[in-house]
Amino acid sequence: MISGVSEIYDAHARINSYIHNTPLIHSKEINKLCGCDIVFKADNLQKIGAFKARGACNAILSLDKTALDRGVITHSSGNHGAALSWAAQMKKISCIVVMPENASKVKIEAVKSYGGKIVFCEPTISAREMKVQELIDEYKYTFIHPFDDYSVIAGQGSIACELESQLQEPLDKLLIPVGGGGLISGISFFAKKNGGIASTIIGAEPETARDATDSFYSKTHVTDYKPMTIADGLRATLGVKNFEIILKNVDEFITATESEIIEAMKIIWSRLKVIVEPSSAVPLAVILNKPEYFKNERVGVILSGGNLDLEDLPW
Amino acid sequence: MISGVSEIYDAHARINSYIHNTPLIHSKEINKLCGCDIVFKADNLQKIGAFKARGACNAILSLDKTALDRGVITHSSGNHGAALSWAAQMKKISCIVVMPENASKVKIEAVKSYGGKIVFCEPTISAREMKVQELIDEYKYTFIHPFDDYSVIAGQGSIACELESQLQEPLDKLLIPVGGGGLISGISFFAKKNGGIASTIIGAEPETARDATDSFYSKTHVTDYKPMTIADGLRATLGVKNFEIILKNVDEFITATESEIIEAMKIIWSRLKVIVEPSSAVPLAVILNKPEYFKNERVGVILSGGNLDLEDLPW
Repeated sequence: MISGVSEIYDAHARINSYIHNTPLIHSKEINKLCGCDIVFKADNLQKIGAFKARGACNAILSLDKTALDRGVITHSSGNHGAALSWAAQMKKISCIVVMPENASKVKIEAVKSYGGKIVFCEPTISAREMKVQELIDEYKYTFIHPFDDYSVIAGQGSIACELESQLQEPLDKLLIPVGGGGLISGISFFAKKNGGIASTIIGAEPETARDATDSFYSKTHVTDYKPMTIADGLRATLGVKNFEIILKNVDEFITATESEIIEAMKIIWSRLKVIVEPSSAVPLAVILNKPEYFKNERVGVILSGGNLDLEDLPW
Repeated sequence: MISGVSEIYDAHARINSYIHNTPLIHSKEINKLCGCDIVFKADNLQKIGAFKARGACNAILSLDKTALDRGVITHSSGNHGAALSWAAQMKKISCIVVMPENASKVKIEAVKSYGGKIVFCEPTISAREMKVQELIDEYKYTFIHPFDDYSVIAGQGSIACELESQLQEPLDKLLIPVGGGGLISGISFFAKKNGGIASTIIGAEPETARDATDSFYSKTHVTDYKPMTIADGLRATLGVKNFEIILKNVDEFITATESEIIEAMKIIWSRLKVIVEPSSAVPLAVILNKPEYFKNERVGVILSGGNLDLEDLPW
């Protein structure tokens, strides 16, 4: 478990020289459109193009020599595979990424470009987990879960440390996209224990991948869920450790439809002039859809990543 | 004429509180790909999404009260129309933009969103100029040319002032996209008189809009030229004042093909995670096409703008 915010500060200090302290960006035009004052934390400009660099880096830098020497393994169809490959390359250790056969070409290329070794499996969760276990049994690799892991959670929480030093005063609301829950569990833990970044922490999910929303409001971990969303980074089902932290530290969840997500993504691209993947557009989609709820407030939005296939845009 | 670099420093001081001091960005992956160390000056993140905000702002802030009271007028199918509308709105004066009937919807919307009044004309240079003259004769508007104007040139040159304070040491080469020549005349004048930003100043043009390249090497102003390029910001023909400054201060010109420009644009989008319009990709296209010429050097690239129709991408 995470004992206190000091663990998140420690994670930040550990990874600080390897990652970017990403900028806060904003747009008067977007503020006018939404009727509130929005601060975007641009972690799409993070190493490997996503916040996942933080958690993967902290996880690897937290390993002892024996674990490092064995090399690391994970399963991922997305940014965590690239992030772990990148962090492993810096420490000169080997990294295996088990990916579904139907993973996107862009994600496969990313893992390869950072020196990760890919092992393909059938595109089901059970096939992934079996393949990982098989390889661990044979080669003793150290497993780094994409989100259900305290060192990964603490690493993602480092965004909150940066926000604390970047903000002049706490935000009224902070919106965080939710997939497996690594990002929101790290940030919300920090925010609630420390109180320095935002009064209200809100999880933002696609309406058609609302397992975390349902888990949160029913207080029962929904694990049997089939997501259907263009926000590919948010298709994962909430992790066990993540659910526990979220229940204690998140204030609410709000969802957005697919068309709202696409509209928000286009607004970010055309107004902020930065590339975000669909997952990163979910918080703005929530604001655009409920402007009266955010009226005149200072609202934070985490832009979680910017990796996508430019040949296959959702419009 | 521009008498000395002090005019460019003055322009920078005049506009400084209205514009962004845009960041330098870079990518290890792009450096690896090109075999050199590239610094991108991200003026696509400038107000109105293009460097044109600088020149328009300096031109308007340099007007006397009589000229201001009359309001301003320009002709533009691109970013200068939006930039002048934006600067006029800040000074609470009226701004007329004469645009061809076939101007893109995105550019029309941009002018409107900054409060500019659009007057449409037939899509020829002579129709534009006639319509502008007609309106000046009737209403006495103050004309601000998109590039063939010393206050505009000095304003665009303010990028060089920022580069000077952002760079630890001068660059080996600096690549600047060339349309009408406002940007490169301002920057090259500063670079040659002052010497603080780069040893070699290179104009980058599409192969199919190479009127400035031809003018430079023949030392004869090519004015009868039909450009055909996706880099819509570079379709203008070199201005008279611009040609004069370029002949004295630019070291060379290099061109890139349309497919090289599109490839470079995709690399910038996917690696730097920022939106640039095709014009901004021309310098990187030049580097990708002549890597041996830039090998191991420190190279600067001006990202001139990020305004384009996301529904109509060139791939």
